Amino acid sequence: MYTFEELLEKVNAGIQNRAQKLNRKEPVKLYEPIEYTLDMGGKRLRPVLVLHSYNLFSDEVSDAIPVALGIEVFHNFTLLHDDIMDNAGMRRGRPTVHKKYSENSAILSGDAMAFLAYEYLLESKAEQITGVARLFSKTAIEVCEGQQYDMDFETRMDVTEAEYLEMIRLKTAVLLACSLKSGALLANASGEMAEQLYDFGTNLGMAFQLQDDMLDTFGNQETFGKKIGGDILANKKTFLLIKAFEMATEKQAAKLLEWTGKTRFNPEEKIREVKAIFNQIGVQEQIQKKIDHFYQQSRQILTEIKLPENRKEPLKKLSEKMLQRVY
Amino acid sequence: MYTFEELLEKVNAGIQNRAQKLNRKEPVKLYEPIEYTLDMGGKRLRPVLVLHSYNLFSDEVSDAIPVALGIEVFHNFTLLHDDIMDNAGMRRGRPTVHKKYSENSAILSGDAMAFLAYEYLLESKAEQITGVARLFSKTAIEVCEGQQYDMDFETRMDVTEAEYLEMIRLKTAVLLACSLKSGALLANASGEMAEQLYDFGTNLGMAFQLQDDMLDTFGNQETFGKKIGGDILANKKTFLLIKAFEMATEKQAAKLLEWTGKTRFNPEEKIREVKAIFNQIGVQEQIQKKIDHFYQQSRQILTEIKLPENRKEPLKKLSEKMLQRVY
Repeated sequence: MYTFEELLEKVNAGIQNRAQKLNRKEPVKLYEPIEYTLDMGGKRLRPVLVLHSYNLFSDEVSDAIPVALGIEVFHNFTLLHDDIMDNAGMRRGRPTVHKKYSENSAILSGDAMAFLAYEYLLESKAEQITGVARLFSKTAIEVCEGQQYDMDFETRMDVTEAEYLEMIRLKTAVLLACSLKSGALLANASGEMAEQLYDFGTNLGMAFQLQDDMLDTFGNQETFGKKIGGDILANKKTFLLIKAFEMATEKQAAKLLEWTGKTRFNPEEKIREVKAIFNQIGVQEQIQKKIDHFYQQSRQILTEIKLPENRKEPLKKLSEKMLQRVY
Repeated sequence: MYTFEELLEKVNAGIQNRAQKLNRKEPVKLYEPIEYTLDMGGKRLRPVLVLHSYNLFSDEVSDAIPVALGIEVFHNFTLLHDDIMDNAGMRRGRPTVHKKYSENSAILSGDAMAFLAYEYLLESKAEQITGVARLFSKTAIEVCEGQQYDMDFETRMDVTEAEYLEMIRLKTAVLLACSLKSGALLANASGEMAEQLYDFGTNLGMAFQLQDDMLDTFGNQETFGKKIGGDILANKKTFLLIKAFEMATEKQAAKLLEWTGKTRFNPEEKIREVKAIFNQIGVQEQIQKKIDHFYQQSRQILTEIKLPENRKEPLKKLSEKMLQRVY
């Protein structure tokens, strides 16, 4: 059995190996932005989940590497295209592809990454690979649906909690779930266990995204990595804002509306003031409750999976880490 | 055995059926542009080639429909994203998706189409479906490479004939080749025949694209469908312009350079004048020779395929039609 660090090393070696191969391919203008994207780093959480899940059933984790890499390339493709749509200038401390190269480059190199994801995935010799490719396709479409809902929400002021949760399920949670289920399918696990791992991933993904939302407002600049308050400045309809409007007194709602309606403001002041209203209302406690709910659900499902405890230990540890943001 | 018209009907019925299903899906803003794109029509050449090829070996052509539809959806996805990159305003007499909806819509709905293509393709129950999915992924990446070369050529004045032919092979021919080979693979044809059909498709695709280039300049407005002279106005490095520069006298080359360098001009005049130089040089004869070469190659390969003549007749007829632009 492998630890998180060991699996991460395998994933990183695989990505490096692929990036080197892409480096020799032409046309350079197509492949350079792809290498740039893969080289940006990131947590590599999804491919490691594939391997952890596979490792529940088999120690031959190298057999699951193609699928792990395919899913990671897909994830990076979504970031690349999302950055165009959101007109984001920076990612992980470096200029985004459409800023560094061009919008056309970002579109086309992104497209090539989507197909490269399948090329890697389909290198797998596993008997169940067609089933995995089907699950992956369904998931990829769901991720597009999630991104569309996210964009739709920008111009809506009446997004409900349920709609928000469905959006993050599609945009974030299903890909974690797909990673875990893929590992199980590749290892010829039972249908029941594959489903349990999918549900474990969905709940873990929900908790993970909600925590990301919470940290964007209430996190610590140093450990979070991103600038605090970005969601507040962009009036993003996260769980926090939706819950705040739901629970606000008339006076608090008016103040929130005033701040979200302002087109000219001092950013520091807006963050401070909106956070103050959030604190009055107590939305941090609300989101924490929601995070705990999904996290506990995921723990419960993991417990129910009929495998020896020591086999499940690495996944348990990883889910703890994910919710503590240790890395 | 089925005729072209019968297979076209099956393809159109399949597309309509899928479009109706998409019509009921949410979010509407993601699925409406996809329906709009599928509803634009087109020759449906690639899916019909899949079915014709399958029909060489088996009469159960409905088994090849999922792959046929997947390839057609992919083709429409490339048109959608290419239209953003080329900033094209109209396609088949209707506004392009990024003009009618928005650029973000065109990016995201296009992305969803790429995955939908796989979803349809992977509905196939055929034993060889993984091989087909691998071929399709390789082909899709090549099409992206072709589009990148095409964009690279815009800012280059030294594109060679060989580079141009490689670009159209990637951008156009390989998808026709993939369609034909997929049909053969699905029907469990021998590896040799599958390769022969691939080569038949490559040569046919080359002839087809070169003819498209020729008609863009020398065609008849009514039968061609598109406005004549578009490539000349855009200084597109097609076979015609490349060959013209290659064969031009110093004086002719100077005149061509003058016209391609002008930023202000009367469109009718530019088309007339550049065409006059082309006629002096005799590039139409040159491209016709090239078209004939690839077309004859494709005929030769079809002849060599060891199947009864009557089985091969529909494919032969279709290739004749394609080069005559009857439809």
